[in-house]
Amino acid sequence: MSRIYNFSSGPAVLPLPVLEKARDEMVDCQNSGMSIMEMSHRDKIFDTLIKETERNIATLLGVPDSHMILFMPGGASQQFAMIPLNFGLGAAPDYIHTGSWADKAIKEAKIVGGVNVIWDGKADDYMRAPAPSELSFTAGAPYVHLCSNETIGGVRFAEFPKTEAPLIADMSSDIMSREIDVAQFGMIYAGLQKNLGPSGSALVILRKDLADRCPDSVNYFFRYKTHMKEPSLYNTPNTWAVYIVKLVTDWVLENGGVAAMRKLNEKKAGLLYDVLDSSDFWKPCARTDSRSIMNVTWRMGSEELEKKFIAGARASGMDGLKGHRSVGGLRASIYNAFPLEGVLTLAEFMKDFEKRNG
Amino acid sequence: MSRIYNFSSGPAVLPLPVLEKARDEMVDCQNSGMSIMEMSHRDKIFDTLIKETERNIATLLGVPDSHMILFMPGGASQQFAMIPLNFGLGAAPDYIHTGSWADKAIKEAKIVGGVNVIWDGKADDYMRAPAPSELSFTAGAPYVHLCSNETIGGVRFAEFPKTEAPLIADMSSDIMSREIDVAQFGMIYAGLQKNLGPSGSALVILRKDLADRCPDSVNYFFRYKTHMKEPSLYNTPNTWAVYIVKLVTDWVLENGGVAAMRKLNEKKAGLLYDVLDSSDFWKPCARTDSRSIMNVTWRMGSEELEKKFIAGARASGMDGLKGHRSVGGLRASIYNAFPLEGVLTLAEFMKDFEKRNG
Repeated sequence: MSRIYNFSSGPAVLPLPVLEKARDEMVDCQNSGMSIMEMSHRDKIFDTLIKETERNIATLLGVPDSHMILFMPGGASQQFAMIPLNFGLGAAPDYIHTGSWADKAIKEAKIVGGVNVIWDGKADDYMRAPAPSELSFTAGAPYVHLCSNETIGGVRFAEFPKTEAPLIADMSSDIMSREIDVAQFGMIYAGLQKNLGPSGSALVILRKDLADRCPDSVNYFFRYKTHMKEPSLYNTPNTWAVYIVKLVTDWVLENGGVAAMRKLNEKKAGLLYDVLDSSDFWKPCARTDSRSIMNVTWRMGSEELEKKFIAGARASGMDGLKGHRSVGGLRASIYNAFPLEGVLTLAEFMKDFEKRNG
Repeated sequence: MSRIYNFSSGPAVLPLPVLEKARDEMVDCQNSGMSIMEMSHRDKIFDTLIKETERNIATLLGVPDSHMILFMPGGASQQFAMIPLNFGLGAAPDYIHTGSWADKAIKEAKIVGGVNVIWDGKADDYMRAPAPSELSFTAGAPYVHLCSNETIGGVRFAEFPKTEAPLIADMSSDIMSREIDVAQFGMIYAGLQKNLGPSGSALVILRKDLADRCPDSVNYFFRYKTHMKEPSLYNTPNTWAVYIVKLVTDWVLENGGVAAMRKLNEKKAGLLYDVLDSSDFWKPCARTDSRSIMNVTWRMGSEELEKKFIAGARASGMDGLKGHRSVGGLRASIYNAFPLEGVLTLAEFMKDFEKRNG
């Protein structure tokens, strides 16, 4: 076995102990004589598993009783469509446009009804998120939507606005990377494939009273309330994903919880931003006050130099550093499971690369 | 390791060689230095993987160029909602009501618009499927929907009707268990968790020209045409599920393809139906001409006897034989990956149980 340092933006690196446990239980999970993939979602083992997973998430994020934890199919992109169907059919919601993911959410909401884009980062090339003081909300808007961390730009909200209408946040790329006050949000959702598990499903944390707002014209399957009755078991859920999230959240708990993750993430990101700020050789993308601690983005003097950097890094056992095809440049995604040693290796590689090419 | 005989109706048994390969590649897939779960869906290894999986499916089912293969989130239940949104917003479609799954599909279609239920098995307690000669279709209906195999009743279409409107079939519980003529169908779909892989996603085989029928009022994410542009990669797909389907379809190919599966399935089902028909001790549920070769259902003299049977079977290493909670009784789900030896073991157990309790 030779593992590499995987800077992929998602699907992304998972903790090695999680993979090793999944491997060891593959043909016989908990002495059941079968794989977790082969087990009925009505089985006692799975019933215990999903409840423990929900408890882990509730503990780690401090989810209050007012909110419910759900596993939903399709990642964040499906939620982009479900949110306006459930909450936006009466009046136009407020959306904050911080980049590619916010934009995808806005496009789905526009199909359903009107949208108020109350802030748009275009003038700054989507390289910053707004401070709460910059925002003013529409009276009567049914909810306010934001993306807490834009994976492509490497931009995040350092602070979340207080809103009268329910605040709905796509936290796909920074959930569990820092402490949040769940009570401040009407809904939090996240594709699993960055900090939580494999791709293909989403975690939803929904304030229970909001579910009833969905009109009867919406298909049963696309109503949150349908999935709340018997939590996450209206249809057969992605049992494998629940299993991996259980193992990942066990690992986060064993490693000190979200506060410890945040401290380590700040340290890891700090190491890279320190290099990026050390000379004009590097051109960090995100504005200082909006820098993500999950996705560190930068450009270099020329595309040739960027290609050389990526190739050299790959030859040194570091993969996934190419920026998103829509913006180019470099991106180091350093989620919770990304090891400190990998960041140290990259930082050293960067300094050395500058010496040889600066 | 001690594996049991797993008669679960889904999620269901997978071929042991598939699990062993997934286990062996868990921390380092194809010398990439990462798990398949950690790999970008834009990675060359995954790109090759998904194309090979589509090719396997096309080969095994004989999918013509007129049709496209897609992986979609959410299993069959999400398709129940997407189908009327894509094809049924203009006029009421025809639905054939053969049991629980057909009913769930009908309920979602009713939300979208009218539905013509052109055949209803209620009079026979949903213990049979109609012969093609019993059906007459509505002029101008945009499509005809059926469920090829009802997992709960253990009832299947022995033969599919020829229709003028596109025929859409939920084949969740018998896809790849017998030869079909894909060209006869406008769309075939199947939750993966019976004959194809893990739960949480669906396989869709769609006649390409139908995709344009979806009106612009439907959310992007819920339009098939959105997912066809860059097949299955509009959003991050369930990469783990694609990987397992690849391994399962490799296994089916290595074991003689769909014709060989069908022969073995007929043999396996025949062994159980022979016991069920051998005396009045057993009360098989499905009508003879509609008997499923995937889910064999029966009742016994009393619920006490049924409980005793289930407990005794479990003690002999056979699990998952309890019928669906909505109908009770017994059910042996014997999908492609269920081994012949397990069926022989159950048949022997049944004969012995009858001797001791008859």
